[in-house]
Amino acid sequence: MAYRSPVADIRFILDKVVPLAPVAATERFAEATPETVEAVLTEAGKLCDEVMAPLLRAGDLHPARLENGVVRTSPGFREAYQQIAEGGWVAVAAPQEYGGMGLPQTICVAVNDMMSGANLALQLNPLLTQGQIEALEHHASEEIKALYIPKLISGEWSGTMNLTEPQAGSDVGALRSRAEPLGDGTYAITGQKIFISWGDSDVTENICHLVLARLPDASPGTKGISLFMVPKYIPDAAGKPGVANTLGVVSLEHKMGLHGSPTCVMSFEAAKGWMVGEPGKGMAAMFTMMNNARLAVGVQGIGVAEAAFQQALAYAQERVQFSQIIQHADVRRMLAEMRAEIFAARSIALACAVALDLGRATGEDHWLARAALLTPIAKAYGTDTGIWVAEQGVQVHGGMGFIEQTGAAQYCRDVRVTAIYEGTNGIQAMDLAGRKMADDGRAAFRLLQEIEDAAKAAREALPDLAEAVWQSAETLREHTEGMIAQGTQDRFAGAVPYLRAFARVLGAHYHLRAALEGGAHEKLAAVYIRRLLPQAEAALAAARAGAVDLFALSPEDLGA
Amino acid sequence: MAYRSPVADIRFILDKVVPLAPVAATERFAEATPETVEAVLTEAGKLCDEVMAPLLRAGDLHPARLENGVVRTSPGFREAYQQIAEGGWVAVAAPQEYGGMGLPQTICVAVNDMMSGANLALQLNPLLTQGQIEALEHHASEEIKALYIPKLISGEWSGTMNLTEPQAGSDVGALRSRAEPLGDGTYAITGQKIFISWGDSDVTENICHLVLARLPDASPGTKGISLFMVPKYIPDAAGKPGVANTLGVVSLEHKMGLHGSPTCVMSFEAAKGWMVGEPGKGMAAMFTMMNNARLAVGVQGIGVAEAAFQQALAYAQERVQFSQIIQHADVRRMLAEMRAEIFAARSIALACAVALDLGRATGEDHWLARAALLTPIAKAYGTDTGIWVAEQGVQVHGGMGFIEQTGAAQYCRDVRVTAIYEGTNGIQAMDLAGRKMADDGRAAFRLLQEIEDAAKAAREALPDLAEAVWQSAETLREHTEGMIAQGTQDRFAGAVPYLRAFARVLGAHYHLRAALEGGAHEKLAAVYIRRLLPQAEAALAAARAGAVDLFALSPEDLGA
Repeated sequence: MAYRSPVADIRFILDKVVPLAPVAATERFAEATPETVEAVLTEAGKLCDEVMAPLLRAGDLHPARLENGVVRTSPGFREAYQQIAEGGWVAVAAPQEYGGMGLPQTICVAVNDMMSGANLALQLNPLLTQGQIEALEHHASEEIKALYIPKLISGEWSGTMNLTEPQAGSDVGALRSRAEPLGDGTYAITGQKIFISWGDSDVTENICHLVLARLPDASPGTKGISLFMVPKYIPDAAGKPGVANTLGVVSLEHKMGLHGSPTCVMSFEAAKGWMVGEPGKGMAAMFTMMNNARLAVGVQGIGVAEAAFQQALAYAQERVQFSQIIQHADVRRMLAEMRAEIFAARSIALACAVALDLGRATGEDHWLARAALLTPIAKAYGTDTGIWVAEQGVQVHGGMGFIEQTGAAQYCRDVRVTAIYEGTNGIQAMDLAGRKMADDGRAAFRLLQEIEDAAKAAREALPDLAEAVWQSAETLREHTEGMIAQGTQDRFAGAVPYLRAFARVLGAHYHLRAALEGGAHEKLAAVYIRRLLPQAEAALAAARAGAVDLFALSPEDLGA
Repeated sequence: MAYRSPVADIRFILDKVVPLAPVAATERFAEATPETVEAVLTEAGKLCDEVMAPLLRAGDLHPARLENGVVRTSPGFREAYQQIAEGGWVAVAAPQEYGGMGLPQTICVAVNDMMSGANLALQLNPLLTQGQIEALEHHASEEIKALYIPKLISGEWSGTMNLTEPQAGSDVGALRSRAEPLGDGTYAITGQKIFISWGDSDVTENICHLVLARLPDASPGTKGISLFMVPKYIPDAAGKPGVANTLGVVSLEHKMGLHGSPTCVMSFEAAKGWMVGEPGKGMAAMFTMMNNARLAVGVQGIGVAEAAFQQALAYAQERVQFSQIIQHADVRRMLAEMRAEIFAARSIALACAVALDLGRATGEDHWLARAALLTPIAKAYGTDTGIWVAEQGVQVHGGMGFIEQTGAAQYCRDVRVTAIYEGTNGIQAMDLAGRKMADDGRAAFRLLQEIEDAAKAAREALPDLAEAVWQSAETLREHTEGMIAQGTQDRFAGAVPYLRAFARVLGAHYHLRAALEGGAHEKLAAVYIRRLLPQAEAALAAARAGAVDLFALSPEDLGA
């Protein structure tokens, strides 16, 4: 069954559910007319369906491998990357002055959704490059920008993010890589980095590493971290890859999935680097792009969910046991819930992107606060949805789901990492329940008020669905008020269920908006609101339980 | 981190939560004294920890492979199988007259739990052999029993089940394999079977296939199916493997996990077979053992959950990010919920086994009805728990969870099939909501009454926990009453959430019993009852929604 990019679904959301119109009404994004958006999505969809998706199995069956210190990528990936870059898909939201399209982040998110569904391992490379472009745009010197960004956009070069070290994962501040000034404005970077996605490849002629490291006199923790550009080949005077830098791939990880994406252990041995941003401000620079990266990873989950759903739907129509299995109530249930979850997660991600674009275009703080609030929800719920839908996809396939040849299992294996990287989903939840409530919940309450108002307005047309959404938002609001008064440990003990409840209420809100359009939208909303929304209350019950029961259990009580 | 069989946890359950004492009080199982049980579990645990668990990674890294028509198994598996058989672990519950231990099924279940945690792929072979012994015991002629059972018990031979064909999975009645009488009381079996676990191996000198096939004049559907013993090598006059039968392995499946277990496509070409049981009664014979097999598969999920939990617990104490990660509230939450789920699922499985033993030993129908009611719950909840706990185990490991070398991912991949084989979990749920309520819910209401009575009795000691359990049982009872009045389609549309709710209420009931023992048991019960039991209500809300919303959505509405 061939993957088909969900162009129509995305356009419906941007038209009726999370309107893009206010973004296109700003001066900055005036080019994002409905016609342009349609043309862009259609064109991107073609690339996804015709170039990227056909390489999905090859990436799994023929993983990237390390040969004499160079990573050889899966068959077809090199050519596909060039087509992605030629289409401009590395740079949908990048500035036009460097060759980008300059479109809203929302369009970039939509394109990333489709590319993730087509081929997650391959999509991760342009995604990382996008992140690097954004970091450079905001923090690098004009010289670095002028040299690197056009080549990252054109696909000649690609970008990586080097944060993690064996002892420094979630605790980035524990990193030990060093940067020694060489006296000429450059630095010698030394250290080992792990889990570096696309840390090397034969896809581009140069690989640009953004590396976090410490200056000799740096303070401990995150405040002592600076950011450096450390290219694989040092650009010569003409801006071409020159001499090889003293860095390399030590080994590739053997992973559960995402085999087409080389995950490298990198070694930097006094490699030449250029500082990006201010000394000691490396984490701040990273945080600029981290919110976007988190949203982008959430969208990876949604894209894979879409692909897994499409395949399960096709199989359920093709497979006969007694009757077409789609006629069995339990299979119909799985498919309907899968589709309802995807719609909800996609709407949340696009709402986050729209808020970001509106914030950037208008400078209004409350939009940026909205985007910041929605980011951890979009990331965790998007990736949880990816995992859950892929799981259900396997189940719809029955015994065939466990056999690799069908591809259903690959979606499960590939998408699993999205709940872990770019901040585990537990960390997202703590971000939501902690940092994102540091405004005393102002952004959250504003959003919940909108949800309640929208539910009230929908009462006449859809009385029972609207009432359920209103009630769930009201319950969430009460819980949020209580949570803000809680101590950190209780908040964090309830953070994951709290995030899930918030996502459910948001999902129901967007489904309700869609339901006002009637037809299949209303039917799907009924499935979500009647069958899935009740989980919000159960999640809040868990969140209310706090930390006391958990810490009453010592490690020995747990069996250690 | 080395796996340690949970002997103490199982003994606690059999002592305080689901007492084995009434079983040991029957004449048939008088030998199952506490001392014997302890000795048996301790001895089995040693084999699991020292022989089976160390081969877990080898099974994954060096899958069984097909060489010149013969399956070569993973390193060490052959020797380990012999040790399993020598210890008597193929035949814990098999009759003593054939060399079995003759112990209660409950002890067999406990041993299978530990073996599954140690090495699921390897354990599947003795498990299938156990199932075959049971089928032969109840349905085969005396000659076949005398010839085959002792050799299956001794480990000289092993057994397989050949049901599925490409067009006949859940719909077994669609199978086409044929059996032609040869006039001498034997039959020529012809057909192709798929998904045959351990369909061939070099572990035993003969492989005994139980094959479902149709006689020439058979009626269509399940009523026309008969059961045949079709050995790989035809036993000679001395009962030794003689000439090769005309059957063989066509290919092995490449699976998501369980690589150490060869999953075969089998071809039978007029292979010589002996009928087991009556003509046309093949499905009935299969059903005799299917309930036990379903319970056994549920227990596979629990075993893997245990192993995945142990590894995650060890990692959470060893890994430092800011502090030991077990000190982070969200990690503690994951571990506590994992352990609470395992306790609940294990208690349900053992309760099912105890009911089976009491039914067999006393002949009282209500015990058999109890076992029949609990079987689909034990299967689906046990395997869902296996998948969920293994998933959480990956999450506790963070980035390392996605790297195969840690083994956390293998648990996920291995256990995934348990929700599919031996009847998908959807089919289990339909069995519960349909067939198992054919007594107008009598068995269910009897059990719910016991739960309510126990909760009332616990009110003084544990007021809030007892009240929550009582209320959940009452809600489930009301729901069940309504469900029995529903039509099939509505019941089936709510079957999976109904089963989940039932499992939650049962799990809370057993946790409450354990909580009366105080200490860590009470703390763990609080986690389950406060944080997880509320999901029962959300599941029932979904179950109440019925089929109407699902079937309102046409395949086209779903995007087809």
